[in-house]
Amino acid sequence: MGDLHMGVEAEAINDSSSDNHSKSVDIYPLSCYYFGSKEAIVFKDETLSDRNNRMKSNYAANGLRTSVEAVILVELFKHPHLLLLQVRNSFFKLPGGRLRPGESDIDGLNRKLSRKLSASEDGNETEWQVGECLGMWWRHDFETLMYPYLPSNAKKPKECTKLFLVRLPESQKFIVPKNLKLLAVPLRQVHENHKTYGPIISGVPQLLSKFTINIVDI
Amino acid sequence: MGDLHMGVEAEAINDSSSDNHSKSVDIYPLSCYYFGSKEAIVFKDETLSDRNNRMKSNYAANGLRTSVEAVILVELFKHPHLLLLQVRNSFFKLPGGRLRPGESDIDGLNRKLSRKLSASEDGNETEWQVGECLGMWWRHDFETLMYPYLPSNAKKPKECTKLFLVRLPESQKFIVPKNLKLLAVPLRQVHENHKTYGPIISGVPQLLSKFTINIVDI
Repeated sequence: MGDLHMGVEAEAINDSSSDNHSKSVDIYPLSCYYFGSKEAIVFKDETLSDRNNRMKSNYAANGLRTSVEAVILVELFKHPHLLLLQVRNSFFKLPGGRLRPGESDIDGLNRKLSRKLSASEDGNETEWQVGECLGMWWRHDFETLMYPYLPSNAKKPKECTKLFLVRLPESQKFIVPKNLKLLAVPLRQVHENHKTYGPIISGVPQLLSKFTINIVDI
Repeated sequence: MGDLHMGVEAEAINDSSSDNHSKSVDIYPLSCYYFGSKEAIVFKDETLSDRNNRMKSNYAANGLRTSVEAVILVELFKHPHLLLLQVRNSFFKLPGGRLRPGESDIDGLNRKLSRKLSASEDGNETEWQVGECLGMWWRHDFETLMYPYLPSNAKKPKECTKLFLVRLPESQKFIVPKNLKLLAVPLRQVHENHKTYGPIISGVPQLLSKFTINIVDI
């Protein structure tokens, strides 16, 4: 277990403040996991304006829209890779999605991950290890971008996206809808690459930087 | 205490995973604090190549250079502001500095904050509340930039910078060396503003995004 640079990280956080005792993530080689496919899922919006209209009517009915997304890591070439879903060969998403009204973060993320990454849709088969909240992004009005803070004039934010670290077990089956592509992208490629991955995903390496990432040799 | 948007944040993190119970920061108006000045400090390097040479000889003597830096917030116009030091009217730094060999993160950050932000240099006067580690950045070779991860080929990183959240009390005196300027910069101005603040500071709003920031009305 571990390799040289991981040893250095572990040493460096030795005497950090006391809340950091559990701030580590074990990651396993990509080859530990099985990848298959299942039936396509239906996308709710064809265009950005569809999405906008749906967000407005949902906001009128249910208020603040909260989405939960998973940061999931695997190892490849001795470097942590982030699991991303690619939609229609264009944009990238972290696996996750919108909470139902009243649903907890953990229940919702389990449901969404099972729907997008597992064989069974009801979440019975895979119990995902939902860990620390890494960050939250806010959309303070329907037409604006998301930011990692609320502007002081934003009394009624419209959307909140929360990122959670999800630790993988040593082996697992990923069964992905045919119309989504699951990719493992190196952290170094994601870092500050707004153009390809957008502001939320391209900031993930920073959000992970306080964790000691242990590469487990199987 | 609190205002409207803070109420929303608190609600949003209600049912997050259990480790988030203490993830909040109380911030106080800038007007709660007193600002004065003291004698100039001596900068060790005149040029970037001075810095490089000093880093190399220090590395040969002591190995990995570890710096600790503080993320300190105050409130102004109902928005969180980050305290930054400006050097020679040009670049910006988080308050902090390099650890001595064998020194702990917390001792070192206390020493550096007292030297740069307090009247007494020996740290007796101000006890800084050093909290969570927010992130770590690595320089894997003398000539490279810093990244929030170690590349897989980096066996011997040369420098590590750790960011810690430091919570302020309700009032405090800041006494700053004459040749440094202490500024309170809105988080929204810092966010993704690499050009002005560099990659580490411009990522701070993301690192803070999982915290509920409570604006305390005095």
